[in-house]
Amino acid sequence: MSRSLNLAVIPGDGIGQEVVAEGLKVLSAVLPQDVKLETEEYDFGARRYHATGETLTDADVEALKRHDAILLGAIGDPSVPSGVLERGFLLKLRFLFDHHVNLRPSKLLPGVATPLAGQPEIDFVVVREGTEGPYTGNGGTIRKGTPHEVATEVSVNTAFGVERVVRDAFARAQARPRKKLTLVHKNNVLAFAGHLWTNVFNRVAQEFPDVTTDYIHVDAATIYLVTDPARFDVIVTDNLFGDIITDLAAAVSGGIGVAASGNINPSGEFPSMFEPVHGSAPDIAGQGKADPTATVLSVALLLRHLGYDAEAVRIEDAVSVDLEERGSLPARSTSEIGDALAVRVAG
Amino acid sequence: MSRSLNLAVIPGDGIGQEVVAEGLKVLSAVLPQDVKLETEEYDFGARRYHATGETLTDADVEALKRHDAILLGAIGDPSVPSGVLERGFLLKLRFLFDHHVNLRPSKLLPGVATPLAGQPEIDFVVVREGTEGPYTGNGGTIRKGTPHEVATEVSVNTAFGVERVVRDAFARAQARPRKKLTLVHKNNVLAFAGHLWTNVFNRVAQEFPDVTTDYIHVDAATIYLVTDPARFDVIVTDNLFGDIITDLAAAVSGGIGVAASGNINPSGEFPSMFEPVHGSAPDIAGQGKADPTATVLSVALLLRHLGYDAEAVRIEDAVSVDLEERGSLPARSTSEIGDALAVRVAG
Ligand SMILES: CC(C)[C@H](C(=O)O)[C@@H](O)C(=O)O
Ligand SMILES: CC(C)[C@H](C(=O)O)[C@@H](O)C(=O)O
Repeated sequence: MSRSLNLAVIPGDGIGQEVVAEGLKVLSAVLPQDVKLETEEYDFGARRYHATGETLTDADVEALKRHDAILLGAIGDPSVPSGVLERGFLLKLRFLFDHHVNLRPSKLLPGVATPLAGQPEIDFVVVREGTEGPYTGNGGTIRKGTPHEVATEVSVNTAFGVERVVRDAFARAQARPRKKLTLVHKNNVLAFAGHLWTNVFNRVAQEFPDVTTDYIHVDAATIYLVTDPARFDVIVTDNLFGDIITDLAAAVSGGIGVAASGNINPSGEFPSMFEPVHGSAPDIAGQGKADPTATVLSVALLLRHLGYDAEAVRIEDAVSVDLEERGSLPARSTSEIGDALAVRVAG
Repeated sequence: MSRSLNLAVIPGDGIGQEVVAEGLKVLSAVLPQDVKLETEEYDFGARRYHATGETLTDADVEALKRHDAILLGAIGDPSVPSGVLERGFLLKLRFLFDHHVNLRPSKLLPGVATPLAGQPEIDFVVVREGTEGPYTGNGGTIRKGTPHEVATEVSVNTAFGVERVVRDAFARAQARPRKKLTLVHKNNVLAFAGHLWTNVFNRVAQEFPDVTTDYIHVDAATIYLVTDPARFDVIVTDNLFGDIITDLAAAVSGGIGVAASGNINPSGEFPSMFEPVHGSAPDIAGQGKADPTATVLSVALLLRHLGYDAEAVRIEDAVSVDLEERGSLPARSTSEIGDALAVRVAG
């Protein structure tokens, strides 16, 4: 019996190319012999945009649908106006493929530097809603460019959308040793959305009596993330709050060089997409300086999503050891780190 | 010639009473002899709400209008449903009195503990818009409580509202030695509001050629706040982003025990309100454990707003020395800290 893993690969811009190459190297090394890895590369990003004006066509979307999953490096370049690639590609794909579970684990591994004093214990997962909230593009502008301009942004929240992500987060919390889930919102100010989130959260909680729950306002959550990150196990939150606190979470747990993420469609109706949290970092692109670790950890999330749990663990363990040894090694290039990880996961 | 300072005092809930008492003690001690200090106390907060169901009546608003400024301790108690006092009192007042400049300085003083490693240099001011954005209460809910509930929150941004706060921030940046202003937003996703903010910011910048400017997305700003806070001088941002990043800013620069804020109406049409960033902390209320420093620093902001610059500096200097000496002193009560500061500013 032979299995196959059919991957869409989107290197994208800046350091995307370099880190994705290492992610694939480690993936090839960790996959069991009987799994046939097929990859198809797509040229989305700034180059394609400049050449054709396209960010993501209907044909692209159809092509991407045929894959088991998507591995993305980074999309974005200063030569493209802010928002064009973000909304025209990244967010478009999250919405079209209904990536409603945006999964962002934060684990401070031994030996990894953190800006926080005293090397605190950090091991939590943020489940960020990915298809609603202020990210829907709702809103508009009147009297643009005049002294009477009014611009609105509408955060859209549905019981359907909130419940499915809250349920997913409860299940993830239940599967972890501490079984704790924190809702992060701002329900004292954003009363309409806050009421919906809080109500759904409390209702679903009844189905998970073994999961401890609490609630924290997003502003206070940023305080705890730097003063007491150990208090978090699983966090569930809205799209924008999740965007903000996961960057902070990445910063305190070793930096965006090691922060992985999954844009997940749990039903499998559409392929899920895995990407490092860092951007395209054009300032260091092409120099072999980028750390591929976040991409490699994103590959682990991808494997776990597709049921390759043992392989995901092998990658995570390899990364742990590699990070711990890093302090005593001379600086390595992007591909040297990838090589070392590939050797480790194969061995 | 004699002057007067007519203050509305709102101790509020929890530790509010205790910290406000120390704020007033220091205020009395620092004011020049010829300034007649008149204070009137108001009983807003949880007690009044439970007794009468009122949070802030029209008559209250009229009464408050007659004062030069308002000193607030803290509003909020677990016995009151989340949002009732926040929206019924605090935000209501910010909106009615057009407190569009929400001023939140962050300065890490020598000897003060920070969760960040390596005692970084932190000295910046956040100018948070206070009357627009997602705080307007716009939005609504349909099919409440059903599986088809939809809840919206509308962020409202006007050229008028954005320009006045951006202009205020430029002026503040210009008055500081580094003369640097950073716009924090999320214009790659919130394109309507982001475009308005960015456009107005760039236009007003032309009137302040000596101010260096930059732009950072709010998610990235949280990273810099923990990895490189020294990069910030003045930040201007929207109401919600400001709420989030100022809690983080307070956490990294010594904690909410020392974070002061001003809800400012720069025209003076309505009284401005000054309050510590911390809440009512019901768990330690009435025990003399609360740190009054944030309230005392809020009094300094109040004095500066009313033109008592020298007195504001005296308070800030006294707090600096007090904080620096704190490490070598046994723990002091709320009133002992207030006494020490009162002696110092008088001396
Ligand atoms: C690039 C941007 C659109 C994106 C987001 O806001 O979601 C990024 O910040 C992220 O967190 O993946
Ligand atoms: C209490 C709450 C309404 C308030 C806000 O969100 O503005 C607080 O967090 C603050 O920052 O002053």
